[in-house]
Amino acid sequence: MTDLEIAQATPMEPIQKVAAKIGIPEDALEYYGKYKAKLSFDYLKSIQDQPQGKLILVTAINPTKAGEGKSTTTVGLGDALNRLGKKTMMALREPSLGPVFGLKGGATGGGYAQVVPMEDINLHFTGDMHAITTTNNLVCACLDNSIHQGNPLHIDPTKVTFKRCLDMNDRTLRDITIGQGSKANGVERKDGFNITVASEVMAALCLADDLMDLKERFARMQVAYTYDGDPVYVRDLGIQGAMAMVMKDAVLPNIVQTLEHNPVLIHGGPFANIAHGCNSVIATKACLELADYTVTEAGFGADLGAEKFLDIKCRLANLKPNAVVIVATIRALKQHGGVAFEDLKEENVDAMLAGCGNLAKHIDTVQQFGLPYIVAINQFESDSPKEIEALENWCKENGHPMSLSQVWAKGGEGALDLAQQVIALCDQPNTYAPLYDVHASIEDKINTIAQKVYGADGVDFTDEAKAQIDTFNRLGWNELPICMAKTQMSLTDDGKIMGRPTGFRITVRELRPSLGAGFIVALTGKVLTMPGLPKHPSALDMDIDENGKIVGLF
Amino acid sequence: MTDLEIAQATPMEPIQKVAAKIGIPEDALEYYGKYKAKLSFDYLKSIQDQPQGKLILVTAINPTKAGEGKSTTTVGLGDALNRLGKKTMMALREPSLGPVFGLKGGATGGGYAQVVPMEDINLHFTGDMHAITTTNNLVCACLDNSIHQGNPLHIDPTKVTFKRCLDMNDRTLRDITIGQGSKANGVERKDGFNITVASEVMAALCLADDLMDLKERFARMQVAYTYDGDPVYVRDLGIQGAMAMVMKDAVLPNIVQTLEHNPVLIHGGPFANIAHGCNSVIATKACLELADYTVTEAGFGADLGAEKFLDIKCRLANLKPNAVVIVATIRALKQHGGVAFEDLKEENVDAMLAGCGNLAKHIDTVQQFGLPYIVAINQFESDSPKEIEALENWCKENGHPMSLSQVWAKGGEGALDLAQQVIALCDQPNTYAPLYDVHASIEDKINTIAQKVYGADGVDFTDEAKAQIDTFNRLGWNELPICMAKTQMSLTDDGKIMGRPTGFRITVRELRPSLGAGFIVALTGKVLTMPGLPKHPSALDMDIDENGKIVGLF
Repeated sequence: MTDLEIAQATPMEPIQKVAAKIGIPEDALEYYGKYKAKLSFDYLKSIQDQPQGKLILVTAINPTKAGEGKSTTTVGLGDALNRLGKKTMMALREPSLGPVFGLKGGATGGGYAQVVPMEDINLHFTGDMHAITTTNNLVCACLDNSIHQGNPLHIDPTKVTFKRCLDMNDRTLRDITIGQGSKANGVERKDGFNITVASEVMAALCLADDLMDLKERFARMQVAYTYDGDPVYVRDLGIQGAMAMVMKDAVLPNIVQTLEHNPVLIHGGPFANIAHGCNSVIATKACLELADYTVTEAGFGADLGAEKFLDIKCRLANLKPNAVVIVATIRALKQHGGVAFEDLKEENVDAMLAGCGNLAKHIDTVQQFGLPYIVAINQFESDSPKEIEALENWCKENGHPMSLSQVWAKGGEGALDLAQQVIALCDQPNTYAPLYDVHASIEDKINTIAQKVYGADGVDFTDEAKAQIDTFNRLGWNELPICMAKTQMSLTDDGKIMGRPTGFRITVRELRPSLGAGFIVALTGKVLTMPGLPKHPSALDMDIDENGKIVGLF
Repeated sequence: MTDLEIAQATPMEPIQKVAAKIGIPEDALEYYGKYKAKLSFDYLKSIQDQPQGKLILVTAINPTKAGEGKSTTTVGLGDALNRLGKKTMMALREPSLGPVFGLKGGATGGGYAQVVPMEDINLHFTGDMHAITTTNNLVCACLDNSIHQGNPLHIDPTKVTFKRCLDMNDRTLRDITIGQGSKANGVERKDGFNITVASEVMAALCLADDLMDLKERFARMQVAYTYDGDPVYVRDLGIQGAMAMVMKDAVLPNIVQTLEHNPVLIHGGPFANIAHGCNSVIATKACLELADYTVTEAGFGADLGAEKFLDIKCRLANLKPNAVVIVATIRALKQHGGVAFEDLKEENVDAMLAGCGNLAKHIDTVQQFGLPYIVAINQFESDSPKEIEALENWCKENGHPMSLSQVWAKGGEGALDLAQQVIALCDQPNTYAPLYDVHASIEDKINTIAQKVYGADGVDFTDEAKAQIDTFNRLGWNELPICMAKTQMSLTDDGKIMGRPTGFRITVRELRPSLGAGFIVALTGKVLTMPGLPKHPSALDMDIDENGKIVGLF
C-alpha cells in the first residue's frame, strides 16, 4: 500500500476529540473542516504561563536524496510515547505545495507513522502558505509602486533585495525582468521569484512570539538600498500593519492527528538552507504548555537542522531542549561508506561501518551542545540482519544509546523501545548552551560552526563576503545569530564528499541580512531558492474522481 | 460609521444557525472558523434534484467610477424578502484580494446591507482565490517545464497564450521576460501575469456543474500554439487531474450571513470584461434548490453583466430567471446628463432627466430578453427631494415599475417596497430567451449584442480580429457564446460617452478563445487584466491590533 492508501484506509477522529485528549476545549478550535483546526488567539493567550513539558528534537545524519525519515520517526515516537501513557504532542513543519507537484512528495511522515488528513496537509491545508505568499508579494507590489509613483524613498531599482514568491516549482521564474512594455507598467528591472517557503516572511513567522511581534519583525525587514546605498526597510514603505492583517489567521497553529489519533501541531515550514528549517516557535511553545512531552524535528541533518534549532530557535525563543534523537538509515550509512545510491539495497556491512564516521560526527555535535542523545535506526525492508547486528555492535562498542525503529511498518508500536529510552534521557540533567556568543564577530561565529559542527579546519571568505561583513558591521546588523546555507548531503560545502571528512575548509561566498527573522544568512555555495520540475512531474499522475478520492499524491 | 465599523459592531450568529434557517443540516457544513463554511460535496449531491425557486437578477445602469451599489441592493433586497417571510438566499461574487490593497475596497455590500465577516471575506475567505492561483500557475510551470525538458509538444515559446496569475494589484508583472539567466532556468520568453480573477480557471469554475465537469473544462483549455500553428491544450500537458485535485475544496460554495443573519452563498468572482462576471453556477443552483427566492448580481451595467448572465450563464446552465432589478443612482443619472464626477453632489434635476436615456436603454435591453423588471433607486444622502420626485415621475410617465431603496441606511427595512414589487414580478409569466442563436456566425452574434444591447449601428472588425475569426472557424471554436470585453462606463466602446448615444459603431480588435469557460471573448479595446496600485494604496492605512481588531479595510 502507498502512504496515501494507508492514510485513506484509516478512519480519522473528529478533531475536537483529538484536541480533548490533550485538554484543549472545543471553543479553542477554529475549524477548517472536520479534521483540521487552528488554536484560537484567546486560547493561546490563556495557556502561555503554563509550565512547559520536555522538548525532544529529532535530527539526522547527512541524508541520502530520499531523506532519512525524520518526520516519520517524529510521528512514530510521538505515537509510542502516547502508547506508554505519556501526554505527548508533536510539532511539525508545514509542507510546501510546490514540491508536491514535482518529485519529492509531501512531508507528513510515511507508512503507519503519518499525520492526516495527508491530502489536505500537502495541498492548501489551512491556507498559511497562501497568506505568506500574499504578504510577501504585497511588499513587492508596494515597493515597485513606490518606485513607479515618483520614487520618494530613492530606491535604486538595481538594488532591490526582496524578491517575489510563489508556492510552485517554477524554474523560469528564477531570473526575470519585470516592468516591461509601456511606461504605465512601472519601472523595468531585474527580479526573480523564490518558492514561498524561502520567503523571509516564513522565517519571521516561525520565530515570532505572536502577531504583534511578527508585525515588528515585518517592519524591520530590509528590502532594498537607496541610490546612496542606505538600506530601505518595510517600515519605510509603511505596510507592516497591512502585512500583519494578512497574516492574522496564518499566525495561529494548526492541529491535526496522527493515524493513531494523537494531536500534532503543524505550523510554519521555512527552508532549511537560507532559513532555519524548524516549525514555528508559537507551535512549539503551545505544545510545551499543553503536553508533558513534545517531539519536534528540524530540516536536513544535524549539521544544519539541529545546529540551527539549538543555536537560533532555542536561543531566540528561550527554549530548553531535553534530548536529541539522531535518525540514521543503514542505506545512508552505506552511502557514506562509498556505495552508489542505486546499489543501496545490496548488503554491504563493511561500507556501512566505514560510513559510521558520519553518524559519529553528528553525535559529537550534539554532545558539544550538552544534550543527551539516542541513535534511532529507521529500518528499511532492504536492511539485512547482518547489517543491523553490525550497527548495533558499533553503537555498543562506542557507548552510543541506540534503538531500532520500525514505525514505518508498525506505527507507534515500532518505537516503544525508543520511547522508553527517550523518557529516560529526558530525566537526565543536561548542560545545553548555544555553541557561540551572539556578540562575537560574524567571522568568529561562522568559524565556530564550521569547526565544531562540520569538522572543518577553517573558513575562507570571498572578497564579496568580506565587503558585506564590513557593511553589516557598519549598519549594526552583526549581533545576530548565523544561519548557514550549505548542502545537506555532506558535512563539507561539497555535496559529493561523503562520510566524515577532515582537513577541509568552508568557503563563504555571500551574506544576506534576514533582519525580520533575526539572523544573518551565510551562503557557502549557490543555493537554489526556486526549485524546478523534473522531466516527469508527479502532477501528471495525480487525479481525483467523482467521489473526491485522490490518487497520485505521495 | 464606516462599513467596517458597522460590520464589527454587529454580533454574528454561528453559521450553523444561519444555515438551519434555510434547512441546511449541520453535517452539511465544512466549517472555516465559526462564521464561514462550505457546503459539503455530499450535501450538494443530495439536493440537486429538488425543485428550483425563483431567480432574481440585480443589474445596473452604466455606473460612476464608485459603482451603483448592486451588491448592497442584492443584500438589502434579500434581507427584505426574508423580513416578508419569504425563504430567500443571496448568491454573490467573491471579492478579489488585490484591489483591497489598492483603492476599490472589498465587495461585501455597504452600510446596513452587508455580508459578514467582511474582513475575512475580503481577505483570504476560504482560500478559493488561492486555489485558483495555484491551479493557474501549475499549468504555467508544467508548460514551461515541458518546453525546457525537450519540448515534446513542439510548443512555440513566442505563442504561449496562457499567462501566470497572482491575486495582487501589481502593474510591473503585466509584461515580463521569464527564463533568464543560465540554461538551467528554462527557456527565455515574454510572459505576463493576470490578476487571479481574470484567469480562465476562475471563469471555468463559475460555469462548471461540478468537479468532474470542471476537470473536463480544464482539459480543453487552450494554452499555446505549436511551431506549426496547431493549438496545444491542457489535456496535451496531462495535468487536468492534478488541477481538479487542487480545486477540490474551491469547487464547494461558501455560506456566510448578512448583518440580518440571512444566508448568503459567496462563490467565484470572474472579471466582468474578459469573463462573464457572475458568481458560480454551483452556488446559484444550490440557492435555487434551497430557497424560494434567490437574489443574485452580475458585474458592471446591464450592457455587460446582465447580457452575459442571460446570454451565457443562464443559457449554459439552463437557468430560468424570473425578474430583473435595475439599480440606478441619481448621481450616475446626473453624470449621464453631463455633470462631472466632482459635482455629482449638487442638485441638478435637468441633468438627471437628460441622463435617464441611459436607464431607458438598459430597461429596453431587459425587455428584449423577455423579462419583467423594476428600477431600484439606490438612495444617497446627497439626493435632493426634487431629484427623487422628478425621477419617480419619469418612471411613472414611461410606465416603468420603480422603488426607492434605502438599504444602505436601513438594511432590509429599506427595501420592503422593492421586495413586495419583486415578489409580484416573479409571479408574472415571462418569455425569457437568449438574444442570439449560438450557432450563428461569430460576426452575427457580436452584431446582435452591439445593436440590440448597446444600440450601435454595427460592428467593425480589425484585420487581426478577422484573421482570428477565420482561425476559430477552422478550429471549430465558433459555436460558442460571445463574452464581450467593453468599457463599463458607457454603452459605446469609449468610456467617455455618457447617456444613450446613437449613431455609433463598435470596433472589435481581438478575439480570444476561452474554451474551458466555454465562450469566445471579443475585445473592443485594451482590457487591463492586471490592475496597478494608486499613489496612496489603502494598504498604508491598514492595521491590526493586539486584540485582532482590524482598521483601514473597506
